[in-house]
Amino acid sequence: MSEQARDPGFAATLAETAAAVEAVLDAELPRPNGSHARLFEAMRYSVLGGGKRLRAFLVRSGARLAGADDTGALLVGAAVEMIHGYSLVHDDLPAMDDDDLRRGKPSCHVAFDEATAILAGDALLTLAFELAADHRVHPEPSVRCELVRAMAAAAGGNGMVGGQMIDLVAEHAGADYELTLRLERMKTGALIALSCEAGAVLAGRDGGFRDSLRQFGYDVGLAFQIIDDVLDVVGDEAALGKTVGKDAAAGKATFIASLGEDGARREARALVDQAAARLDVHGERAGPLRAFGEFVLTRRS
Amino acid sequence: MSEQARDPGFAATLAETAAAVEAVLDAELPRPNGSHARLFEAMRYSVLGGGKRLRAFLVRSGARLAGADDTGALLVGAAVEMIHGYSLVHDDLPAMDDDDLRRGKPSCHVAFDEATAILAGDALLTLAFELAADHRVHPEPSVRCELVRAMAAAAGGNGMVGGQMIDLVAEHAGADYELTLRLERMKTGALIALSCEAGAVLAGRDGGFRDSLRQFGYDVGLAFQIIDDVLDVVGDEAALGKTVGKDAAAGKATFIASLGEDGARREARALVDQAAARLDVHGERAGPLRAFGEFVLTRRS
Repeated sequence: MSEQARDPGFAATLAETAAAVEAVLDAELPRPNGSHARLFEAMRYSVLGGGKRLRAFLVRSGARLAGADDTGALLVGAAVEMIHGYSLVHDDLPAMDDDDLRRGKPSCHVAFDEATAILAGDALLTLAFELAADHRVHPEPSVRCELVRAMAAAAGGNGMVGGQMIDLVAEHAGADYELTLRLERMKTGALIALSCEAGAVLAGRDGGFRDSLRQFGYDVGLAFQIIDDVLDVVGDEAALGKTVGKDAAAGKATFIASLGEDGARREARALVDQAAARLDVHGERAGPLRAFGEFVLTRRS
Repeated sequence: MSEQARDPGFAATLAETAAAVEAVLDAELPRPNGSHARLFEAMRYSVLGGGKRLRAFLVRSGARLAGADDTGALLVGAAVEMIHGYSLVHDDLPAMDDDDLRRGKPSCHVAFDEATAILAGDALLTLAFELAADHRVHPEPSVRCELVRAMAAAAGGNGMVGGQMIDLVAEHAGADYELTLRLERMKTGALIALSCEAGAVLAGRDGGFRDSLRQFGYDVGLAFQIIDDVLDVVGDEAALGKTVGKDAAAGKATFIASLGEDGARREARALVDQAAARLDVHGERAGPLRAFGEFVLTRRS
């Protein structure tokens, strides 16, 4: 049964947001021009024309729930997708995970070269912050500052980049369930949680409202990563658009290694239920975010 | 004749700022701890204990001239030094300039490894934006947003990273004087110009005031790079703390290649004079910035 058959409404909403954020990314990414055109080509190659834009969907859904303006949400969604895109470009480098395939295309360093890929990643990360600080995101500079600060905290040394460091260290030293949990909370969870809470920031809703979205994000983020590990073992390379079986072969910290496939699926289910419960206070309006949780469990790619 | 003998006041001010910004960097860079300690070690290794902190000096001098608070200036100075530090870590990578020596020590990827160096650079860049958005920098969020925006523009695809891209392309394709000028304005000039104008932003002084500092920065930044090229040919490796003769050997775009050594020195002199003239409107209070221009011409390292 395809995802569409299960929840046509969710699939349509996801596709609509993906198209909207693609248009924003296309407009915000500089057009190749002049003697450094190659850099902009590599940035556009790495970010445009691929990906389900799950993080942008979370930003937009959180913003709708919180009552924030959609224009700002799409710009923040685009900024988060730039950060996600940069992290994939750098993770795929030969010195890192050494992956030749990404979103069904040659990785950035294969399509261009390593130096260009390093620079394209650097420029994408930088552009994400320039965009988050832009006046079009929100009329209140205090809101933009808080977005920049929260994005940096989620993406930096105690967030995504720190998680990637643990991942690399664990490849040699090994990782038990506790360490795998910690590294995935940082590597994948932090940016997904930021995506969820960004809408609350845009709507100026702090405290418990913002916390409920962030905690939802951490739970579904972890479920997402657990299913990622399952798909790395049982998934279809063509559907995923990336190399499968690699993490296990490389001795990487995965939830399959610590929980087994069935245990991993049960854990993901429990996390999605817990995530949904975080949204109980928001009632029916949190429907799209709850649907996202179910999507995480049933996705094939 | 040593730099100290020429202008004891300037050397003392430079050293005092270097010590002050070192203390801020030491406090702001996370301490190695937990399973990603290696990342923080690499960040601290790459940024602490070296460098003249010229960019932080420019931020602080511009801030004093504009009448901005010193605490904010030191934090912004530290953020700019993090960006400068990240750029050196990534530039030294084997896929980029492949340099084993930096500030008299093994480069980050030699002391650690390539993956750690890539991640340390990424985390430094991210932390710089987190710091610039921090409330301690300035009570007004609009000022912090403008700093984030301007820093990102100077560091990104149309600034420092774009300049590095042109530099890599030019290594194969060659570069005439015009292209060398353009790439250096982006690669080195943009962040130095941002350092100079940051004080005006902190003091809420826009328009002509800010322009004069930015233009001063572009002129001295170019002079700085021209002298860098001269030192790469005639300089002392031990004093410089980095490999010399490499740019010329690699066929890189340099001002020596297009102007010769004497021509390069004359051009640097003319640029410093032009830079000083930009500050005429500020009278005696611009003394430290003018002294910086002279320092650029006479430095040995």
